[in-house]
Amino acid sequence: MKIAEVLRLKGSAVVTITPETPVSGLVDQLAQHGVGALVVSADGQSLDGIVSERDVVRRLAAHGAGLLDHTVADIMTRSVRTCGLKDTVDELMALMTEQRVRHVPVLEDGKLVGLVSIGDVVKQQIDVLKTERDQLEAYITT
Amino acid sequence: MKIAEVLRLKGSAVVTITPETPVSGLVDQLAQHGVGALVVSADGQSLDGIVSERDVVRRLAAHGAGLLDHTVADIMTRSVRTCGLKDTVDELMALMTEQRVRHVPVLEDGKLVGLVSIGDVVKQQIDVLKTERDQLEAYITT
Repeated sequence: MKIAEVLRLKGSAVVTITPETPVSGLVDQLAQHGVGALVVSADGQSLDGIVSERDVVRRLAAHGAGLLDHTVADIMTRSVRTCGLKDTVDELMALMTEQRVRHVPVLEDGKLVGLVSIGDVVKQQIDVLKTERDQLEAYITT
Repeated sequence: MKIAEVLRLKGSAVVTITPETPVSGLVDQLAQHGVGALVVSADGQSLDGIVSERDVVRRLAAHGAGLLDHTVADIMTRSVRTCGLKDTVDELMALMTEQRVRHVPVLEDGKLVGLVSIGDVVKQQIDVLKTERDQLEAYITT
């Protein structure tokens, strides 16, 4: 299965956050959207970085309370692994495993067109298994 | 594939943390072990709860700096989804998707014998794909 199909099923809407947002605002938005990471983009289309719950937690020990006044730009990952619409889910799983990343932005012509999480990948695999089982059951019972 | 096989490949060592540990200590241990969640256990064998980066980040907005002085018991999830050694990876993937959990402790006779993350599940799938490809290549070239 291609990434384009995963996005077709999950939707291509990507929540972005600006680099200037304080970490306090980031924490609120992660909770509000029920996600573990957000794409960082100044204009909603470019990819400036990615920022995750892990980035927050890892810096919490060092900065303590003061962390909430830092900005997203201070803690985000700038060197982001990305994928394209024509890549396969198998390739994406290999990327996630080898690079130990859990969220991969999807780019087309350099513009952000989606975000795939490790949860999306596993959900898609389960959906395939369920479809196969249903087809088999339908075949057996007819 | 069964969960027992996943643990055989990744190892069954589980890092636990006590409920009385302050959140500051939790944050240090998550970083030290390079993981996103720890099993909470008073004695290293019982399962008292699970605590993740998400539990920290979600409460950070509400408590601010004071959060670091709270304990693991204050923020952990007590009602934990678990699996057994004889469960399959497909069943675990379905559980992770339906319950939106990313770490599932493995119990045998009520005792903690492992922890499987969504990253472990995806890594295992990739390993299976690679083995199949290698076998196919070996078959073609002989």
